[in-house]
This record gives sequence, structure tokens and C-alpha cells, in this order.
Amino acid sequence: MPSYPEPISQLIEALLILPGIGRKTAERFAFSLLQQGTDATRRLATALDTLHRQVVPCGQCGQFSIATLCDVCADTTRDRSLLCVVAESRDITSLEHTGRFRGYYFVLGGLLNPLEGISPERLRFAALEERLRAGAVREVILALDANVEGDATALYLTKLVKPHGVAVSRLARGLGAGARLEYVDEATLATALAARQEVT
Amino acid sequence: MPSYPEPISQLIEALLILPGIGRKTAERFAFSLLQQGTDATRRLATALDTLHRQVVPCGQCGQFSIATLCDVCADTTRDRSLLCVVAESRDITSLEHTGRFRGYYFVLGGLLNPLEGISPERLRFAALEERLRAGAVREVILALDANVEGDATALYLTKLVKPHGVAVSRLARGLGAGARLEYVDEATLATALAARQEVT
Repeated sequence: MPSYPEPISQLIEALLILPGIGRKTAERFAFSLLQQGTDATRRLATALDTLHRQVVPCGQCGQFSIATLCDVCADTTRDRSLLCVVAESRDITSLEHTGRFRGYYFVLGGLLNPLEGISPERLRFAALEERLRAGAVREVILALDANVEGDATALYLTKLVKPHGVAVSRLARGLGAGARLEYVDEATLATALAARQEVT
Repeated sequence: MPSYPEPISQLIEALLILPGIGRKTAERFAFSLLQQGTDATRRLATALDTLHRQVVPCGQCGQFSIATLCDVCADTTRDRSLLCVVAESRDITSLEHTGRFRGYYFVLGGLLNPLEGISPERLRFAALEERLRAGAVREVILALDANVEGDATALYLTKLVKPHGVAVSRLARGLGAGARLEYVDEATLATALAARQEVT
């Protein structure tokens, strides 16, 4: 392995925490930062430094926020009867971007994944039950990934939510917008066929 | 475009300076950093912060170094008659890693590329001539990329170096180690054929 001056190899090590970034790319990043002015590098250092100091989980839904109550949870005009459960904070941004949901959110903090050691205790199920016990929620919408982990988590959640007398729904499955049948995978096509909707 | 809390969007903007990183990946980085502990993020911030303060170009060859004279230039046992010209600092690491070169290096700071505005004034040609005028160098080895920019820079350098009565050579071209003819591109194969070496 090539040996670099100490500050460079320390930066390379530190860059390895970025997801999907290996040593080769980290080296490329480090040398690119060296070639750029100190300003850009310092801006990045400052942004990293303030990140965890200013961003905290919302006390109610758990999404990343700069206040103890996030913008969504602080908005009293939304529909208290709808609670959308998502795995990660950033899923909320995608859903908000559609402009079609006026309820509240709840962030689980991940999806069940025994292989990666994510067992029920690691997710915010207890906080969710507490939220349901408060009573206002009438429907829980599961907005989870359409994969094995998402399905397992949905199953677990359904068993957890139902006893509270709350309805459970999940995002529809089928063809994505603009999908061309030629390129759609078999599993999606099978789901779309099974869940076909009557044209009236 | 989704709107994130201010510290998160500032980090995303700052991450865009990394080479080859677009907004989507920068977002992924930012949220990954949020999910990891503050320690890893702070380590990265510190590494970035110290980078430009501790790393300077070597006063002689121009490679990134933590001293005003880098390890190679400070090593008086090397062969002063050989000067290997490279485009970037990190090329030196690759060459040193072969363990086959005992001369000194000179970093140009890039390759001629009129389309990207890299004209001769932007590269360290003047410093190179000064080095040649000092007199010790007898052969300049051009270790540049085997592409259009590398070739153009090699041509420019040859015209610049020759008048100093110094020999000019460049890295051999041909098949890479372990190359299988089936997968070698035509240009490489043509070069390898034209530069074929007699077997004695």
C-alpha cells in the first residue's frame, strides 16, 4: 500500500466512513481536496463540525431536524388521524415532495434485518406504540421498501398496530410511472397483475 | 428539489466539491454521516481542517509533503542525473511503489488541455527549466498519461528539454502485465505491434 504524508493518510482513513467509498476513491477525494483551494475544504470541515451539533431527531416523529419538534410535527393543521411509518428520515422528504400527504410521520430508524443484527429492539417500535396509545391515530400507512426487509417489517408492524384498533395500509405495488412492460421485471409484473384494478 | 434542514443542505453543498460526486450521492453521504456517531464525523472534520495547514508542495519537486523538502528530494543518495517528470503528486507514489526508480521527480501540476483552459502558463514549465539549468540532470523521463493530453504535454516538454542538452525518454507503451490479447483494445495492440521488441 502506498504511503502518504500523515495528514493525507489520516484524511483517507476518515473518508472511508462514507458509504460505498473504498480506499481508491478516498485517495482520489483526498488529492482532489489538496488541489482545490483551502476554502472549499474548510467549508466542508465546518459543515461536518456543525452537523451533529445542530441536527437532532425530532422528539415526536424521530426525523432529523434543527428543532426539538420538526416542521411537520409542529404543523397543527395536518390530519392527526393519519400516521405514515417510514424507515429513514430521508423517506419523509420524498413523500413530502409528492405534496399528497397531509398526515404525520413516524421514523422507525431502519428495517428489520436479522443478518445485519437489526432486531426489533433496535427499531422504535415502543415509541410507535406509545404514539398509538395517545389515541388520535386511526390509520397507519406503511411506506416501506418493497423488498424482503420491508415486507418483514410490515408484517411485524401490522401485528403490533392492529391490537390498538387502528387500520393498517401500505403503499400500492405495481408498475412505476412511465414503466415500459418490455423492461419491467417479472416480480413487479406479477404483483401488478395480481393487484390489477378494475376500470370503470 | 427536496428541502433539508439548513445544516444538512450546507453539508450536501460542501460535499459536492468531491470529484465525481453529484447531489444524490452527496445526500446519501450526509444522511449516512448523521446516522453514524459524532466521532467519525468529527474525525473527518479534523482531518480536513489540518490537511491544508500541514501539507505543502515540496519546494523542489512540487509534490505534496509535510516538510518544505519532501522525503525523496531530501534523500541525497539518489541519482541526480535522472529526473522523472509526472503530472500529479500522486503519480510519484505509484512510481515509488514499483521500487525501480532511484532518481528524482518533478511535478508539472497537470497536463496541457486547452479545452479545460490548462495552457503552458498554468503548468510548472518555468520551474522545470530552472531545474535543468542547475546542470546535474542528464536524462528526463516523461511518465505521463498515455492519452491525447499526455502526448501533447510530452511533445511540448521534449521541445523544452532538448535545447538544454538533456536526453528525453518516455514510459514504454504496449501490453499491460497479464493482458489477454482477446481483451486488449486496438490502439494498444497497434502500439504494441509497432514497438515490438526483438527476442534475442
